[in-house]
Amino acid sequence: MTSSFLWTLRSFKHFVNGSSICQAGPVEKRGRGRRPAAQVRGEILDAAGKLLLDEGMGAFTIERVAAEAGASKTTIYKWWASKGALALDGYFHAVESTLAFPDTGDIERDLLTQIRAFARLLTRTRAGRVIAELIGQAQTDEDLAAALLEHYSGPRRQLAVAAMERARERGELAAGVDFEVVVDQLWGACYHRLLLPNLPITEKFATSLVRNVLRGIRA
Amino acid sequence: MTSSFLWTLRSFKHFVNGSSICQAGPVEKRGRGRRPAAQVRGEILDAAGKLLLDEGMGAFTIERVAAEAGASKTTIYKWWASKGALALDGYFHAVESTLAFPDTGDIERDLLTQIRAFARLLTRTRAGRVIAELIGQAQTDEDLAAALLEHYSGPRRQLAVAAMERARERGELAAGVDFEVVVDQLWGACYHRLLLPNLPITEKFATSLVRNVLRGIRA
Repeated sequence: MTSSFLWTLRSFKHFVNGSSICQAGPVEKRGRGRRPAAQVRGEILDAAGKLLLDEGMGAFTIERVAAEAGASKTTIYKWWASKGALALDGYFHAVESTLAFPDTGDIERDLLTQIRAFARLLTRTRAGRVIAELIGQAQTDEDLAAALLEHYSGPRRQLAVAAMERARERGELAAGVDFEVVVDQLWGACYHRLLLPNLPITEKFATSLVRNVLRGIRA
Repeated sequence: MTSSFLWTLRSFKHFVNGSSICQAGPVEKRGRGRRPAAQVRGEILDAAGKLLLDEGMGAFTIERVAAEAGASKTTIYKWWASKGALALDGYFHAVESTLAFPDTGDIERDLLTQIRAFARLLTRTRAGRVIAELIGQAQTDEDLAAALLEHYSGPRRQLAVAAMERARERGELAAGVDFEVVVDQLWGACYHRLLLPNLPITEKFATSLVRNVLRGIRA
């Protein structure tokens, strides 16, 4: 299972830049009537992401996703070339919605919300093992590494840096701080515990991360 | 090369707890005369560590180490069961000496010294690629993961936490701070850039890590 998933990741770049974004397409029949293609696609991605995060790659099949989404296998294969392609798209779809970056105008509150959501995703769903194995495999797979940087960690870095830049404009954060470094000290610290799990990722850990870096640890 | 090295890592626990620590043993002839066994062993580890960090696992052979250390292959095989066992011991030997934790009585200075040394090790030697591949492989290899946690990341965490506890006793660091979390925000942040290299590990990065967490990033 894992190997076919990873195989797909190797062609992730092509896949992401390719045909997976569907603006128009077929319609699907279901008990409650015909649905627009965009809706069908969204429901397939919802089902794929949920199955992946709830049960992991071992339980992930096109048949299960089709059944959960009320779509045909033919429709799924029209938009995704393989099971792995669908899994990857479903994974990012699920993670993206869970990890939306809040903007309440209070950076401490927004960082706490975001890091706690990330910690929960890593520990209470299969996402933690999925992403840990992907990062692990990327250490000896250049194509996978490039795809992860370009489509996963790069865009997620940008969202966090942008949020901190807005906070600086509001006068909440200090001039001269490199927010890219702060990303490594918040999300990177979580990946450290995910990949070298000497200690668990907890709600308290997430809270301490934000507290330490915002206020400093000096006496 | 990598696979045989990793294979050895799987039996790392046995190896570390086993026969590799030599207190007495044979003596070795060399141009300048007979050397005590402990000295021979130290020179073999020096040569093994240097070869590994300078040239990587691809160039690592028992023959090369024997030649560099002025020892016989027979002597090396008396103490290390395989090339991988010697490589692993040499790696930790080399890393340990590079990453000694200074204790000058000034925690900011000591953290800067230590993190900068770690950053240099990861970027200017092969150690970065070696440890990245080990952590990567550990994501799907439970024995390797256990060995890394017990013999690598666990002991290194303890050194850092102990240094920060001494600083707190001196009144430099705040009460109530969980120093284990700070480890994730300093060394863990470096591993994040090592494993997901969107941005490089630089001297400036190392400096910013310490600055951010000690002083905080608030305006």
